[in-house]
Amino acid sequence: MKRIKSIKHFDWEIQYFEHDSTSTKTSMKFSVFIPQGNSIPDSALIWLSGLTCNEENFISKSGFGSHLAATKTMIICPDTSPRWLDLSWEHESYDFGSGAWFYLNATTSNYALNYNMYDYINTEIYTLLVKYFKVPESKISIFGHSMWGHGALTIGLKNLEKYQSISAFSPIVNPVKAPWGKKAFTWYLWEDEWTWKNYDAVELINAWKKHKNPILIDQGSADDFLEQELLTENIVEATHNSDQILELHYREWYDHSYYFISTFLWTHISFHLQYLK
Amino acid sequence: MKRIKSIKHFDWEIQYFEHDSTSTKTSMKFSVFIPQGNSIPDSALIWLSGLTCNEENFISKSGFGSHLAATKTMIICPDTSPRWLDLSWEHESYDFGSGAWFYLNATTSNYALNYNMYDYINTEIYTLLVKYFKVPESKISIFGHSMWGHGALTIGLKNLEKYQSISAFSPIVNPVKAPWGKKAFTWYLWEDEWTWKNYDAVELINAWKKHKNPILIDQGSADDFLEQELLTENIVEATHNSDQILELHYREWYDHSYYFISTFLWTHISFHLQYLK
Repeated sequence: MKRIKSIKHFDWEIQYFEHDSTSTKTSMKFSVFIPQGNSIPDSALIWLSGLTCNEENFISKSGFGSHLAATKTMIICPDTSPRWLDLSWEHESYDFGSGAWFYLNATTSNYALNYNMYDYINTEIYTLLVKYFKVPESKISIFGHSMWGHGALTIGLKNLEKYQSISAFSPIVNPVKAPWGKKAFTWYLWEDEWTWKNYDAVELINAWKKHKNPILIDQGSADDFLEQELLTENIVEATHNSDQILELHYREWYDHSYYFISTFLWTHISFHLQYLK
Repeated sequence: MKRIKSIKHFDWEIQYFEHDSTSTKTSMKFSVFIPQGNSIPDSALIWLSGLTCNEENFISKSGFGSHLAATKTMIICPDTSPRWLDLSWEHESYDFGSGAWFYLNATTSNYALNYNMYDYINTEIYTLLVKYFKVPESKISIFGHSMWGHGALTIGLKNLEKYQSISAFSPIVNPVKAPWGKKAFTWYLWEDEWTWKNYDAVELINAWKKHKNPILIDQGSADDFLEQELLTENIVEATHNSDQILELHYREWYDHSYYFISTFLWTHISFHLQYLK
């Protein structure tokens, strides 16, 4: 594993790394924000970004620094897909392939070797936190935005003991019913309906997956993707019919951007801190 | 004047505008952060960005939102040069021409018609704040970064009554002695030494320009441009030999980026607020 860059920020350090991934069989990049020197973080947040993003968007746009530097909680922000391949259709559209891996393990022949992003996050990044960054296993939470808000919800709901808490901004909650999800799932998983449901937060809650803590979601009411892609009301209905507690805030006039995320970032960080401390 | 875009952020609004400038004879863009609805700001900050930047960098990267939304102070961030021209050499390098206007009124034949950025900020943007955004004339301060930190210092020092306070991150303080400055001044002003000095903070202080309030500067000690381009020690020496009070902080290990700016942004905003309120 190679550290590419270190930048001082709020008395801590932003560090960028590159490493060989066994899940994707490629070199992958991620960023972290950690205390300077020999100070060891007492807990960690995994942040999963949205379509078209990489390991830098959250770091440069979210205004996270002042929030985290006042804690002992580090953050890790992985890139959103393998980058050095040239698979069929991989680079043709913003909502599929590079920059758009949807946090699943692909099964179609074209993608199965490399697009194993579920394993990359849930096994490799998780293990890095514990082994390399010395974070206690019981002190890791997960959150994300949009396509990767979907990732945070599904990875969290499928690994109820690994993540202390789960939250998302503007997540895709029911991808099996949304155009982005249908396109990606078809190409990554082909037409295996059971597997589709296994990567869908609403379907996981319908199948009685229940996290011990509430799930926090913030959703802008002026989000252009709300009605067609995110389908927030479907998770409201699913939680009504289950024991999963959902803490959902519709935020009037807010859009889908990092200006929305940064406005409510402290709400999410403090939500996670109450379960990590 | 046309409003292009509005985005809700920390309960206020980021707005982007486009307007015809009499100084540059082009269409110019700027961004503002203002209270929503009919609430009128009681004061304003003018932010001037650095080389290669435009009206968006500060807005997307500085983490300003939480600081300003707690006040009644708006901010305006102009683009850093005219954009729709095709003058000789204008787009050849990052440190000259488009994205690099150095806040002066050009006198060379190639640039004199359009590169009047000193007037654009000091007259047009200032007047917009007063007439369009209804900010009281006595409640405007100015700050900036790097090349435009230079802009903030020189525009402030040349208009002692117009700006309540002046600050800068990593400014070029003595451009007549630095490669970036020499290149830009030669091409914008040719070899007129007196005019060069008239756009140089150290020379203005040497010529007994003195603002009533201290000038605040933050400078990262790990800034790659410090020794050759910024020449911070020259303004220390100039203020030692004058009555101008300088509040300078060297920040150990910090670089030239927005990660440095965002870390100390509240220091600068609260500095200005004490003179604006």
